[in-house]
Amino acid sequence: MRDIVVFTGSAHPDLARRICGGLGVPLSGVDIRRFSNDCLQAQLLANCRQRDVFIVQPLVPPTQEHLMELLLMIDAARGASAAQITAVIPYFAYARSDKKDASRISIGGKLVADLLATAGAQRVITMALHAPQVHGFFGMPVDHLTAIGVLADHFREQDLTSAVVVSPDFGNAKTATQFARLLGLPVAAGSKKRISDDTVVIDTIVGDVAGRRAIVLDDEIATGGSVIELLDRLGEAGCTGAAVACTHGLFAGRAVERLSAHPMLTEIVTTDTVPPAGWPELKVRSIASLFAQAIARIHAGESVSSLFDGVDPTHAPPQAHLPLG
Amino acid sequence: MRDIVVFTGSAHPDLARRICGGLGVPLSGVDIRRFSNDCLQAQLLANCRQRDVFIVQPLVPPTQEHLMELLLMIDAARGASAAQITAVIPYFAYARSDKKDASRISIGGKLVADLLATAGAQRVITMALHAPQVHGFFGMPVDHLTAIGVLADHFREQDLTSAVVVSPDFGNAKTATQFARLLGLPVAAGSKKRISDDTVVIDTIVGDVAGRRAIVLDDEIATGGSVIELLDRLGEAGCTGAAVACTHGLFAGRAVERLSAHPMLTEIVTTDTVPPAGWPELKVRSIASLFAQAIARIHAGESVSSLFDGVDPTHAPPQAHLPLG
Amino acid sequence: MRDIVVFTGSAHPDLARRICGGLGVPLSGVDIRRFSNDCLQAQLLANCRQRDVFIVQPLVPPTQEHLMELLLMIDAARGASAAQITAVIPYFAYARSDKKDASRISIGGKLVADLLATAGAQRVITMALHAPQVHGFFGMPVDHLTAIGVLADHFREQDLTSAVVVSPDFGNAKTATQFARLLGLPVAAGSKKRISDDTVVIDTIVGDVAGRRAIVLDDEIATGGSVIELLDRLGEAGCTGAAVACTHGLFAGRAVERLSAHPMLTEIVTTDTVPPAGWPELKVRSIASLFAQAIARIHAGESVSSLFDGVDPTHAPPQAHLPLG
Amino acid sequence: MRDIVVFTGSAHPDLARRICGGLGVPLSGVDIRRFSNDCLQAQLLANCRQRDVFIVQPLVPPTQEHLMELLLMIDAARGASAAQITAVIPYFAYARSDKKDASRISIGGKLVADLLATAGAQRVITMALHAPQVHGFFGMPVDHLTAIGVLADHFREQDLTSAVVVSPDFGNAKTATQFARLLGLPVAAGSKKRISDDTVVIDTIVGDVAGRRAIVLDDEIATGGSVIELLDRLGEAGCTGAAVACTHGLFAGRAVERLSAHPMLTEIVTTDTVPPAGWPELKVRSIASLFAQAIARIHAGESVSSLFDGVDPTHAPPQAHLPLG
Amino acid sequence: MRDIVVFTGSAHPDLARRICGGLGVPLSGVDIRRFSNDCLQAQLLANCRQRDVFIVQPLVPPTQEHLMELLLMIDAARGASAAQITAVIPYFAYARSDKKDASRISIGGKLVADLLATAGAQRVITMALHAPQVHGFFGMPVDHLTAIGVLADHFREQDLTSAVVVSPDFGNAKTATQFARLLGLPVAAGSKKRISDDTVVIDTIVGDVAGRRAIVLDDEIATGGSVIELLDRLGEAGCTGAAVACTHGLFAGRAVERLSAHPMLTEIVTTDTVPPAGWPELKVRSIASLFAQAIARIHAGESVSSLFDGVDPTHAPPQAHLPLG
Amino acid sequence: MRDIVVFTGSAHPDLARRICGGLGVPLSGVDIRRFSNDCLQAQLLANCRQRDVFIVQPLVPPTQEHLMELLLMIDAARGASAAQITAVIPYFAYARSDKKDASRISIGGKLVADLLATAGAQRVITMALHAPQVHGFFGMPVDHLTAIGVLADHFREQDLTSAVVVSPDFGNAKTATQFARLLGLPVAAGSKKRISDDTVVIDTIVGDVAGRRAIVLDDEIATGGSVIELLDRLGEAGCTGAAVACTHGLFAGRAVERLSAHPMLTEIVTTDTVPPAGWPELKVRSIASLFAQAIARIHAGESVSSLFDGVDPTHAPPQAHLPLG
Repeated sequence: MRDIVVFTGSAHPDLARRICGGLGVPLSGVDIRRFSNDCLQAQLLANCRQRDVFIVQPLVPPTQEHLMELLLMIDAARGASAAQITAVIPYFAYARSDKKDASRISIGGKLVADLLATAGAQRVITMALHAPQVHGFFGMPVDHLTAIGVLADHFREQDLTSAVVVSPDFGNAKTATQFARLLGLPVAAGSKKRISDDTVVIDTIVGDVAGRRAIVLDDEIATGGSVIELLDRLGEAGCTGAAVACTHGLFAGRAVERLSAHPMLTEIVTTDTVPPAGWPELKVRSIASLFAQAIARIHAGESVSSLFDGVDPTHAPPQAHLPLG
Repeated sequence: MRDIVVFTGSAHPDLARRICGGLGVPLSGVDIRRFSNDCLQAQLLANCRQRDVFIVQPLVPPTQEHLMELLLMIDAARGASAAQITAVIPYFAYARSDKKDASRISIGGKLVADLLATAGAQRVITMALHAPQVHGFFGMPVDHLTAIGVLADHFREQDLTSAVVVSPDFGNAKTATQFARLLGLPVAAGSKKRISDDTVVIDTIVGDVAGRRAIVLDDEIATGGSVIELLDRLGEAGCTGAAVACTHGLFAGRAVERLSAHPMLTEIVTTDTVPPAGWPELKVRSIASLFAQAIARIHAGESVSSLFDGVDPTHAPPQAHLPLG
Repeated sequence: MRDIVVFTGSAHPDLARRICGGLGVPLSGVDIRRFSNDCLQAQLLANCRQRDVFIVQPLVPPTQEHLMELLLMIDAARGASAAQITAVIPYFAYARSDKKDASRISIGGKLVADLLATAGAQRVITMALHAPQVHGFFGMPVDHLTAIGVLADHFREQDLTSAVVVSPDFGNAKTATQFARLLGLPVAAGSKKRISDDTVVIDTIVGDVAGRRAIVLDDEIATGGSVIELLDRLGEAGCTGAAVACTHGLFAGRAVERLSAHPMLTEIVTTDTVPPAGWPELKVRSIASLFAQAIARIHAGESVSSLFDGVDPTHAPPQAHLPLG
Repeated sequence: MRDIVVFTGSAHPDLARRICGGLGVPLSGVDIRRFSNDCLQAQLLANCRQRDVFIVQPLVPPTQEHLMELLLMIDAARGASAAQITAVIPYFAYARSDKKDASRISIGGKLVADLLATAGAQRVITMALHAPQVHGFFGMPVDHLTAIGVLADHFREQDLTSAVVVSPDFGNAKTATQFARLLGLPVAAGSKKRISDDTVVIDTIVGDVAGRRAIVLDDEIATGGSVIELLDRLGEAGCTGAAVACTHGLFAGRAVERLSAHPMLTEIVTTDTVPPAGWPELKVRSIASLFAQAIARIHAGESVSSLFDGVDPTHAPPQAHLPLG
Repeated sequence: MRDIVVFTGSAHPDLARRICGGLGVPLSGVDIRRFSNDCLQAQLLANCRQRDVFIVQPLVPPTQEHLMELLLMIDAARGASAAQITAVIPYFAYARSDKKDASRISIGGKLVADLLATAGAQRVITMALHAPQVHGFFGMPVDHLTAIGVLADHFREQDLTSAVVVSPDFGNAKTATQFARLLGLPVAAGSKKRISDDTVVIDTIVGDVAGRRAIVLDDEIATGGSVIELLDRLGEAGCTGAAVACTHGLFAGRAVERLSAHPMLTEIVTTDTVPPAGWPELKVRSIASLFAQAIARIHAGESVSSLFDGVDPTHAPPQAHLPLG
Repeated sequence: MRDIVVFTGSAHPDLARRICGGLGVPLSGVDIRRFSNDCLQAQLLANCRQRDVFIVQPLVPPTQEHLMELLLMIDAARGASAAQITAVIPYFAYARSDKKDASRISIGGKLVADLLATAGAQRVITMALHAPQVHGFFGMPVDHLTAIGVLADHFREQDLTSAVVVSPDFGNAKTATQFARLLGLPVAAGSKKRISDDTVVIDTIVGDVAGRRAIVLDDEIATGGSVIELLDRLGEAGCTGAAVACTHGLFAGRAVERLSAHPMLTEIVTTDTVPPAGWPELKVRSIASLFAQAIARIHAGESVSSLFDGVDPTHAPPQAHLPLG
């Protein structure tokens, strides 16, 4: 079997080290230089020839810098005769640019998928894409992981009597329902109302939340505006408090300040797909082990979907109903 | 300026004729033969050389036959030196296969987009894709039209006092909101509840519908199951009756029978993106003129998005805020 | 060595099972669903990751359905990270669309070859392409098998005194000559005369057939028109009777009825590249073992051409004449 | 309308000049240099920007030199921003490498088609490809011309009483039949017999030739071996003499000497797709005007196939039977 | 003729405006937004359909941001059905990454060329690439302009008695020789000596500079280290003073401070391929008019190389020596 | 591990045999045929299936013949299901066509790189490319070897007192410096002066050569004009004699005669990247062993760059400075 080599750029080296720890392989070095005209160069400091190369780089701010680092590392691995190159992108930021909702814009998620292929990526491992259709922007195989098992483990340690899972909107409701099922809880959702073409507000909560403790689940929190609005509505609807869980905890702008100050918030838990915001109270559950297992299975030719048996039916093992053969 | 040539396969020649009528160009003939081993051949019966070729073919059942006809016609036009080949696919059926919601399936919408590019299509004109992200499956330019203006015209002729626009689910709510705004009406939506991994039911209506007449808007009706369930809920919620409007009216299986029999249904209106079901009461508004205008603008190098000024803000003319230049 | 996984669609599962029997591996299941809008979905029910995947699907009627199933299965295997994907197409029906013999038609065989590549096929195994040039329509490696050894085995069991091999036309004569050589027999051929641009008749037999028993060899029989005409001519020329052998026995339309009734016909033998026509007298020799051996050799990196040593000089092992090194 | 620019390499500048004469445009210069390491360079000496560029180069010996010149000229035109690049290859020599008739060989015709596309050719105009399937080796549009009208014009000036058209083999018989129809003559053909795997001889003539004057039609004559064998058989069969007509008159090796000496030969006529052999008695009919007309029609967006109305039914104008629209 | 539309990102809008001024067309607006997760979006605010689109964006710092803006604008123009998309990149920063001078690095210039093609660029206009071979990294046509005519005009206004053109190294000497010829001056060059694998110093001046006034010509000045070293050597060699001219005046880091303080420096002149450094004494000659003329000629299908007649023999009009035709 | 199979065309079979000797594998045969129309065919005479195929062919005169042989062999290996195809091109002649130094020429080096990829090459091993940027013309991995270690070994056996390494120009000076360092010698270089646009002469020697013995190092000698001019200058500058070393010793035209007669020349040493000129005094050091080692390492997945530790810092092992991980 070919050797595994893992590299990382400057986006999130701690995560890469944790993944390597889980895999039991060392993190190989990369020397990234910036020339006087601001161009980047990435030199891979380990032999790639005929190796199974994994390059870990979530697309966190400064996003363009990290994207270019990733493209340069992939191209360098290709030129160095890697047997297979997998881009491990725990947070694929451009997934939010997933449709043409204005004239004459690029669908950025599709463009970045194409750029990765051009640089030489042959496979992507990612987590919690903003919309499941983004998978179809890639021509190469994509292993699309979910963090809801990891986040559910966090709450399993708590008393969940009278708790309810709440999705900020109905687009995310399918994932929230799976999450609620893992915890044996009911589910509710915020209902959004479009005020104008640009403005959407949450105007009501569908489902019974009065007197209950909410566990809000979202895929990504950037400025936190939607979650704060949801917390306001939950308060009005008689919730006794709310924990917030999300996969990608960016906490950009004044998000930490605004969330910290909200009276409904009891705790906030996220994963390490992105580097931690400077927020001591933030609880972070690592998804490094999941990525390590996925990489190990990919390398060994084992099923990745079975990693999520019982967690996400999308990844359920193939069932035997109505087989042809 | 180059000449326009329009061809069609056997999927929906009436629509192609109507589009040609709107364009003021003849529909050029195609000779489709089936060989004794069931292979198809399509011969284009008009000169394509240096022409701007448009091939009209919605992907209606038998879907695979019509897809292969379309691919053969596109390839024939390419081999015959067409200057530009546009696939006009008013109903892109495979858009529903837009995500990998089970292990080891193809994302069919992406595959078909790739097949069209391989055959030689350089542009697609379509209408009401099931999810807006499907646009990103195509590497070529896509003109994505909307029928909500045409459907709204239908209801503008009626007394709309105490009417309410209802979306079967929240995924379609953005379109329903635009539709409601065109009619000056409020909007409500069905809220879906997941019973099991495979089963979803509408369990409540969000928004005020009691004592009101509903106008249900959906993008596509195949078996009609969702709409019938919504009509049940609307009845329970005190609606006085319901008109149903949809872009793609397939009415497969027992849809006509089941919908006809529903006591809440007052009228049903659809467009001619697909050939009409044999249902005399069905009201059909033609989108042929919209397609003809889009083709004429594409051919003349004029903006297609401005065709939808005031209808769909996605297609709004570019606005001048914060320009760089 | 990587594992083999074999899938099949709905075209000819019996053949796939026989091939798996020869290989000693199980046939893995595929769940093919048809949605209410007639779109297909194929789910592969076995792990493909890093496997050597073979997908068996002859392009028999309904041809377009089976082609789309095949494309969906290939694309699903690619998305599921198969190491190598081989389309096993024992009967490649579109090979008959091999030239542009009219203005503005597609060369369908080339188009289908391109579609297979787009879906993700990396190799094709097929048998008895209608013209050997069709091989060049594929950019990927093609293993082109021949059934003449299998068909010759059938006749070796018989008394061949005074028999003669007859080709319906001169295009197929090279193959007929090889077949005759395997049986130690002389060869004759029908000579076609073009009546009009569309009509060709067999007007004479070149070679000595009077008082002999004919063994007619053709690559494919669909409606059987050519063979019946040849049988008429053979009768007139004094043949005592005729056996008919073909690789692809489609027997479409009234072929069974017309052939059965012909006074010259003594027996008819074909292979199982396509599912058997409902014709009890038809003798079917299986090519499953040949395909199984070819797959096993491909998988093991052994020569496929040497499978045909002594059968077909095209597949002869490289000879040492005039080597450079 | 864009300007036409025509270039040629060193393969056959006289033909290029004749084509330019027919078009009424000057032949633009090309400066071809050979460096001291035997590498070639081709500089185009006229502006190509936004022009419709045609590069005339038959693949005559030294074939590899002329192929490389052609690839370099095409690439130079692409780099110089040509609007459209057409390779005009009156004799596409590699068409004879059209199948894999031995293990581990390249299908050279397919490879060269791919090389032309890589260099930047967007269209090919050629004549009398050795097999019609070779058309399918190209992914780009191919205009495939025929010289049989030009060759027939040659014989129309003669007394054709008791003449018969003879094809050397049955593979070419379809073309011979069209040729015979143009002259109102019957047709006969040589019947080949395979002596061993490598050796094929003509052993009989099918059709009535005794006492008649033969007009032998072939697509290409290189060493002339087949034609000489046919002339021998025609003599034995009682022919009174034979004229020979072919599209591509290469006359390689001792062909001129051997043909000149044959007692049956009355005249030999060919075209100027290749430069003339040094053979004063050879009659050459120019196809330059046909190519000039094809180029003019391509440039003007007119049908090329209608150039052959009444000559070749393949190029017949589209007929109106069974139109869909 | 198609309309021209010109867009620019945020890299250098002043230059884009000047180019538009030269062209006599307005600069069309672009709305560039940054989302809360740092992803960019670019909306083109003018109709692109069937237009000849030019997007002006030199790759100046922050280089990665400007590269991503450029890719997004190109992709948006493609999706908006532009007829032709030209990336106008007056300073192509990644050209300095032009070889693999260490193990396992990317050749960044090639990668960026590939990314531009993937986004949809069909042509590039650039100036003074660091090495002429970088042209070959692009598969699309490149118009490679030179500023030496513009820089020579600056010095033509001066008394050039006893002046000498000096190249910092021999790699740039060919361009310096052309520049010297335009001014009728002799040429000298710095000779570099390699101290260690990483360090190169200028250790001598080849050519006669004593008692002369130097005009130093370089393609790009970033930190200015090489130029300062050359000025030191010129002082030691008896030069009376030195003017410095360069195409791309980045003046990064402490370049302005260090150059300003050098006693040999008499003046420094650059162009506006990059935005001006904050340095009042810097003389800037605009290349906007050259770019405007190149765009106008490209649009009109006229020769761009003839723009440089008498300036750069590379761009000389084709000469008539040894033509084939 | 997969088997290695090595083939060669007719360019330099001796070198291929030596490489095979170094590898300990037999050279597999190739049957190259030339048809009567001058087309080539290459049949590989050993099984390629799932093998690691290496095809050795330097692009020596007749260059176009050898290039076409190489393309045909690569394509044949692809069609025969090779696992990986490496083109081993010790002398890549078209590297000299590396820039667009005149209007409307092809960059031949880039074109040939693209042709190799089209035929199916997946990797290239080459030596001493004329400019290092040519590496970037290839989209596939390139292993770029150097002969300076081998050439240095030749001189290490001599008394090097008072010797000096001389580069004919400054473009090659970096390599000459590495070579000098390997021998512990100083370095000098010829300084070229441009007489006219086409003519360049060496007018002076930079560095101290008087009374010293020169070792001239060049990458390639074709006609020998530059070297002879340099020898003249070295004589004038007081050199006592000159040895000449080059990687690619083509010695075209009258090179042998002219060099042999030069009074300064003491010895001339080259490698066997090209077949030996008929020149008994020529000393040839074989690079076969270097190629054999590179192939062995590629096959085994070991680093190729470490083959040049201490020879060429470009190939130095990755160093640990500033690692990210």
